[in-house]
Amino acid sequence: MEEFDADRIAEAADAVVLGYPHKAAAPVVVALRERGVKVVDLSADFRLSRELYEREYQAHEAPELLDEAVYGLPELGHREAIAGADLVGSPGCYPTASLLGLWPLREVAADAVVDAKSGVSGAGRDPNASTHFVSVDENVVPYKVEGHRHRAELDQELPGLAVTFTPHLLPIDQGLLASCYVTPKSALSGAEVRELFEDAYRDEPFVELADAPPGVRDVRETNLCRVFATVEPATGRVLVFAAIDNLWKGAAGQAVQSLNLMLGLPETAGLLP
Amino acid sequence: MEEFDADRIAEAADAVVLGYPHKAAAPVVVALRERGVKVVDLSADFRLSRELYEREYQAHEAPELLDEAVYGLPELGHREAIAGADLVGSPGCYPTASLLGLWPLREVAADAVVDAKSGVSGAGRDPNASTHFVSVDENVVPYKVEGHRHRAELDQELPGLAVTFTPHLLPIDQGLLASCYVTPKSALSGAEVRELFEDAYRDEPFVELADAPPGVRDVRETNLCRVFATVEPATGRVLVFAAIDNLWKGAAGQAVQSLNLMLGLPETAGLLP
Amino acid sequence: MEEFDADRIAEAADAVVLGYPHKAAAPVVVALRERGVKVVDLSADFRLSRELYEREYQAHEAPELLDEAVYGLPELGHREAIAGADLVGSPGCYPTASLLGLWPLREVAADAVVDAKSGVSGAGRDPNASTHFVSVDENVVPYKVEGHRHRAELDQELPGLAVTFTPHLLPIDQGLLASCYVTPKSALSGAEVRELFEDAYRDEPFVELADAPPGVRDVRETNLCRVFATVEPATGRVLVFAAIDNLWKGAAGQAVQSLNLMLGLPETAGLLP
Amino acid sequence: MEEFDADRIAEAADAVVLGYPHKAAAPVVVALRERGVKVVDLSADFRLSRELYEREYQAHEAPELLDEAVYGLPELGHREAIAGADLVGSPGCYPTASLLGLWPLREVAADAVVDAKSGVSGAGRDPNASTHFVSVDENVVPYKVEGHRHRAELDQELPGLAVTFTPHLLPIDQGLLASCYVTPKSALSGAEVRELFEDAYRDEPFVELADAPPGVRDVRETNLCRVFATVEPATGRVLVFAAIDNLWKGAAGQAVQSLNLMLGLPETAGLLP
Repeated sequence: MEEFDADRIAEAADAVVLGYPHKAAAPVVVALRERGVKVVDLSADFRLSRELYEREYQAHEAPELLDEAVYGLPELGHREAIAGADLVGSPGCYPTASLLGLWPLREVAADAVVDAKSGVSGAGRDPNASTHFVSVDENVVPYKVEGHRHRAELDQELPGLAVTFTPHLLPIDQGLLASCYVTPKSALSGAEVRELFEDAYRDEPFVELADAPPGVRDVRETNLCRVFATVEPATGRVLVFAAIDNLWKGAAGQAVQSLNLMLGLPETAGLLP
Repeated sequence: MEEFDADRIAEAADAVVLGYPHKAAAPVVVALRERGVKVVDLSADFRLSRELYEREYQAHEAPELLDEAVYGLPELGHREAIAGADLVGSPGCYPTASLLGLWPLREVAADAVVDAKSGVSGAGRDPNASTHFVSVDENVVPYKVEGHRHRAELDQELPGLAVTFTPHLLPIDQGLLASCYVTPKSALSGAEVRELFEDAYRDEPFVELADAPPGVRDVRETNLCRVFATVEPATGRVLVFAAIDNLWKGAAGQAVQSLNLMLGLPETAGLLP
Repeated sequence: MEEFDADRIAEAADAVVLGYPHKAAAPVVVALRERGVKVVDLSADFRLSRELYEREYQAHEAPELLDEAVYGLPELGHREAIAGADLVGSPGCYPTASLLGLWPLREVAADAVVDAKSGVSGAGRDPNASTHFVSVDENVVPYKVEGHRHRAELDQELPGLAVTFTPHLLPIDQGLLASCYVTPKSALSGAEVRELFEDAYRDEPFVELADAPPGVRDVRETNLCRVFATVEPATGRVLVFAAIDNLWKGAAGQAVQSLNLMLGLPETAGLLP
Repeated sequence: MEEFDADRIAEAADAVVLGYPHKAAAPVVVALRERGVKVVDLSADFRLSRELYEREYQAHEAPELLDEAVYGLPELGHREAIAGADLVGSPGCYPTASLLGLWPLREVAADAVVDAKSGVSGAGRDPNASTHFVSVDENVVPYKVEGHRHRAELDQELPGLAVTFTPHLLPIDQGLLASCYVTPKSALSGAEVRELFEDAYRDEPFVELADAPPGVRDVRETNLCRVFATVEPATGRVLVFAAIDNLWKGAAGQAVQSLNLMLGLPETAGLLP
């Protein structure tokens, strides 16, 4: 592994996608930004307001950069800001699917529950007891149910909506499903719900509205988020299922999508089959 | 396969656990009951009131037996009735875990969402496209999200509670997890929630209250339901996770538990390791 | 599904990759060849000599075409013949990996055992008891151990070598590993074995010689065959492990590779990441 | 975890099943034997002759005990010796299945190849890169192909037979299959092979002769070894498939089987469903 050399990188690259752990990322971003390199950062360091970041993580290492950082989810109204940005904090995998599932309902939702299910690659490469094959295989386990840090991104992007967020670990390698249960402020028909989703995502290259609940295999090795929204007849609750590949739309693919926007390239460059 | 011969069975057996499909079970139960054989029926035919049954399935084949049939979930206050019954309708796997998760909250719950996750053995032995290994592997898929028949059992046992119920198919063979999200009528502390569960299940041989969210592996090849209940600090919502082995507490084990009660045997006979 | 219309296809296409079952493929190939369409056939119908075909399958439906058919494994010395062919019988998935593992040893091998392990997608799309998730999961099963039809391809391409061939079904969707155990006619060093493989595959775009035994994940979603060959010190036996993705190098990818040769395109067109 | 106290154990127990790593086990066994406690040791320390042990492992920590140690595979003619022993070295999981597959052929075999396939629980509890879910899932990997220590047990129990032994890691938690390929000294019919196996195992409580190749699921959570033996028509080679649960017949169950013999209990005590 080579040592990080900001000067060498600044000479070689106009832009960088950075995959450091949170807290470790911030000083590297500072060094790159000082040299004029555009950055898409995959850590949590530039996704959140200072207040939310310091609530969930620790004192911020480079608060002076937070003003220029943009949250890298183009579909949530951030496309133009990303295109003009030099620093993008790319969303976590859980918030990506959850937010894409909830965003079209933000004005009609009274509350929301997100039951999120992730493959093991979301837990990173380090081996530990909870990623041992024998722990994961033939199992499904909820974890951090009293507060996963990723919920701060939901709080930020959906202000005023009380979202319950619960992650579960599944015996699959790639893939993430957010099952969203939303109580509407007033009764909605299935047609009205579908219209909200069509209005929100009609022109989105990476969001597919489906006619049936998606499985994570449907989007494996793609940058797509496939979404199905409906109304449960018995309760009137709005159900939304949003599936992504956590390594693509939940991480690397989404970073490239932002990078394309920042560099004036077609948003889908390098991301279509 | 032998043909069904009610006379021969009545001679040989005091009681029978029956594993026929719904609608096919009812006439067999009639023939056995006419001969004085006690029955635990694993089909849906004797789980529900006539009204709920005919709403979800079809015209009932033996409505005259419904008055004597008891719902086979001892932990929901049915223990004495089961002990005195000659006919028990044994619960579905989804309702078993969901009801055990929600029962202690029935008086304090304003509404509830159950996100249920099942292994493939719950889908039965018949091969079809949705149980093909390649469909299931590396996947998680919600299904029947607009109304699974099992929710009628929730309606019956938790009258007045509007429950959203959504099943998901997981790439595991055995095991079922019900993740329950309950809005309380008024704010509850974690301690109050735990007390409700301790009061409900303190003496139950097959319900374990856990200190952390259970995985389905924890109860594999046992008749246990392991339950964890807590309050999400950010929203005050009550979270309950209930794990069973769908082939044991969700089917065969639970039937034996009822049978033990009906025959005056210790409730746990044959069901402990 | 549209009905097959040879005239319409002949108008629209210079060449066709055909995915019919054996026996059903032959008449379709006849119709296409009569109209001058080049064909890569994925069935068994044009892989084998008439004698071997009729030993393993049934009377051949179009024996008159067998003379012009070429076995579609370029790496086995068939590259030029494929480039000049109008009809290619594309190899089975098992023979592809097995033959690539054994080919460099064909002159030094006294005998060979191939223990082959395949993912479930190799069994096709039709659901049956043996592809049901619950049958496959947590299992490994040898099958057709007294004679799988694919061994005829080994007999044909490695004449004079007595190969034991045993397939096993694994709980994975894609991927095939051929573990080959070869008794050499006379003692070989590891270096001599490696040289045989380097000589055979040095210029092959889709065969990678590895420094350690490959796993099937290493070649997932690629047209590569990754091969490791060594000598077991204790016995002097030559061990070869050849891994492919059964849907790529074992089926569709390999067909495109032949098609590229037949059409004068670069052999790797459309097959590199 | 309590510290090891030989005196306390000697007071409390007549016999011990020991699960320490090799080298660490030997001094513990010494302490227990000095106090008259019978021991079934699951490590490699008392399985092998000193010569074989020191070839594969390291200098032996308690060579003085090797004379009294018996290899704990009753089915290989060691039953009486085990019954009279105070110290048993319980076999490894790979040798158990491999030896049970090869034993009836020991006098007719010219050579043998064992392609062994194991679930991940065989690799132990410590998390590392090779047991991470994402490494194992959707994969099959040969390992230690140039010499796994377990082959010393084959050398010892099948003297004079040159056995190729190659382990593979499978994406399952429990289960081990040994696929054995044996060249007979002179031609054998299927009936002759079956007779050899019936003669060897007719009275064995834990060896089942099957009519078709076994899968590891067939013996999951049992102490059985299920074996199928046949002759490949095309080559005359003898094929044997032996399946065990690596945690039962491959470890804990087998230890209890030896313990039963040592204590004069029925051999199957505690080991039947």
